[in-house]
Amino acid sequence: MARAGLSRVIEPGDLVALKTFEGMPVQDIWDRLRRNDPAFERWSSRVPTADPQRDLERAAAVGARFIIPGDDEWPDQLAVLEDAGQLSRCGGIPYGLWVRGRSNLRHAVSRAIAMVGSRACSSYGEHVAGELSSGLADQGITIVSGGAYGIDAAAHRGALAASGLTIAVLACGVDVSYPRRNAALFSRIADDGLVVAELPPGCSPTKFRFLARNRLIAAITEGTVVIEAAIRSGALNTAGWAEQCGRAVLAVPGPITSRMSAGSHLLVRERNAVLATNVAEIIEATAPLGSALTQPPRAPQTVTDTLPPDLQRTLDAVPVRNPAPTNSIATTAGLDLPTTERALQALASMTLITQTPTGWRLPPNQ
Amino acid sequence: MARAGLSRVIEPGDLVALKTFEGMPVQDIWDRLRRNDPAFERWSSRVPTADPQRDLERAAAVGARFIIPGDDEWPDQLAVLEDAGQLSRCGGIPYGLWVRGRSNLRHAVSRAIAMVGSRACSSYGEHVAGELSSGLADQGITIVSGGAYGIDAAAHRGALAASGLTIAVLACGVDVSYPRRNAALFSRIADDGLVVAELPPGCSPTKFRFLARNRLIAAITEGTVVIEAAIRSGALNTAGWAEQCGRAVLAVPGPITSRMSAGSHLLVRERNAVLATNVAEIIEATAPLGSALTQPPRAPQTVTDTLPPDLQRTLDAVPVRNPAPTNSIATTAGLDLPTTERALQALASMTLITQTPTGWRLPPNQ
Repeated sequence: MARAGLSRVIEPGDLVALKTFEGMPVQDIWDRLRRNDPAFERWSSRVPTADPQRDLERAAAVGARFIIPGDDEWPDQLAVLEDAGQLSRCGGIPYGLWVRGRSNLRHAVSRAIAMVGSRACSSYGEHVAGELSSGLADQGITIVSGGAYGIDAAAHRGALAASGLTIAVLACGVDVSYPRRNAALFSRIADDGLVVAELPPGCSPTKFRFLARNRLIAAITEGTVVIEAAIRSGALNTAGWAEQCGRAVLAVPGPITSRMSAGSHLLVRERNAVLATNVAEIIEATAPLGSALTQPPRAPQTVTDTLPPDLQRTLDAVPVRNPAPTNSIATTAGLDLPTTERALQALASMTLITQTPTGWRLPPNQ
Repeated sequence: MARAGLSRVIEPGDLVALKTFEGMPVQDIWDRLRRNDPAFERWSSRVPTADPQRDLERAAAVGARFIIPGDDEWPDQLAVLEDAGQLSRCGGIPYGLWVRGRSNLRHAVSRAIAMVGSRACSSYGEHVAGELSSGLADQGITIVSGGAYGIDAAAHRGALAASGLTIAVLACGVDVSYPRRNAALFSRIADDGLVVAELPPGCSPTKFRFLARNRLIAAITEGTVVIEAAIRSGALNTAGWAEQCGRAVLAVPGPITSRMSAGSHLLVRERNAVLATNVAEIIEATAPLGSALTQPPRAPQTVTDTLPPDLQRTLDAVPVRNPAPTNSIATTAGLDLPTTERALQALASMTLITQTPTGWRLPPNQ
């Protein structure tokens, strides 16, 4: 009850509160706030508005609960925020989380990846977010994002389309649909996944709350994948939190002609993010060390890769276009005439070269 | 004359020749080949076809000359091939170069960058190659490529369009138009830039000659920029030569949905290539150390970046959508009521927030 009350009185990530309350039991903080302790005067005006019992009832009315450290459902990953440093003037472990949905949050984030990006994304970004999200969900990975338009929504939808788990971490109450046009999406996520917030029911988002929210997305996931982010972008803030938390930072490239991919490319160039082009590469960069190494893409082996040396040398010496006679090819290949003759016949029987009235050449279109 | 003769008798990059002739003066090699020295029997069949005087005349007829190490025009950069190791079963410094065009080759490569990529490129790749090539040419940088369809041609054309210098390094004679549909392009390059080949006039390309040619492109440039390369691509071979020569390797990203950009992304992921998204970044990676550092793209400073702390904190606490009264915002911001009131008035006068009958919010579309 004390933590539920604090979640309404203290702004998410409030660094002054973090410092002032350091080492104090939560019950003491709450009691002193309610007694109007002058040392806590900074927060006094909001204490009268706090009614944790009513907030818990409001949450229950939309199928939400309040969980705190030590609860069966509490994600241990959040402990990283204790030492993660600060970013955007906020930090620290939340007093609790408001959780809407039937899944167990701890289980849901046992293997989770954040996917974030631009609200005003391109159709390329939307497509790629959906595909990668579906592909990761197919591998049993939970997709965590922020419920915004654009990349966030495409990531949530991709996971839902693959019947996977997805978590929307909001900068407002779990009963608030912000942005409003994503209301139907939030309902689906609450039905099949989880909607999570640090703020109690009814709260509205502010700029600061978005920045504080980003630390939760980064902390509860094994890595943050940025798909399309302009240079000034909340996604880069989430990536910064992932760095602070020691999580992987991945960036999906795009056309250099698109302003939308500039942030992703910046992350690779300046902040050492892993360039990610498919599901396997994302899993490799976020999985426990060495447990999911990918095979870099290799060209398919062709028949010419496995030719015996004499045939290989002969083939390499056959002109691309203007036919050459056998003796000329023998010279180019540095082989004697009988060897070259045999090799040419063998190559022709494999249709790797073509015989013309004036000699040998590669087949057209090679 | 001996070197011109050797350029017809010995295949470009022939490793056996490299080893057999090691430490021997060129004149001795040529004399022993012409005397049918049994130790050189491997190349004997081609000696009778060599007529350097005739080759020089053929070259002169198309405005070409033959240059050798020590000549005023010889590019010293080729010396790197002495120790560059081997790739694709070839290596070594060429005996000479056949050069067509009016420019001085040594001057032309005093500041040169290679741009290579897929023949079957996308319109994105073609566009990007043209733009980057023009941009580099505008900075006085010579663009070196292989004269193929696709990215190579777009790179040459971009430099020509910017009235810059471009060099086509061919895997055939400088008087041979391969591929044929690039004949007009080769004429323009010969007029305004340079067409260069290790092979004497009249020679046709072979697969091996393309691979040997790639080492010259990499060696005479400060870095190789790969734009669109499939996984099996000559451009990746050129990038490998750039590595061997200690030159920069750069890759331009593209959509992950395009097979054509897979090779570029592979270079960044697996071979530590520099991700390049614009002209300045290419120059930075190829210029002498520290002489051309770029500014990473930064978001433009906005008025909110420079607000005094109280105004910043107040602005961060204003709801994005549902208006909040002053006292609520004061609580969220952790400021006293008069300070918050003054800050809200100031922010409203800067049109950073909007007043409504029920309180303050951010303007729509923020």
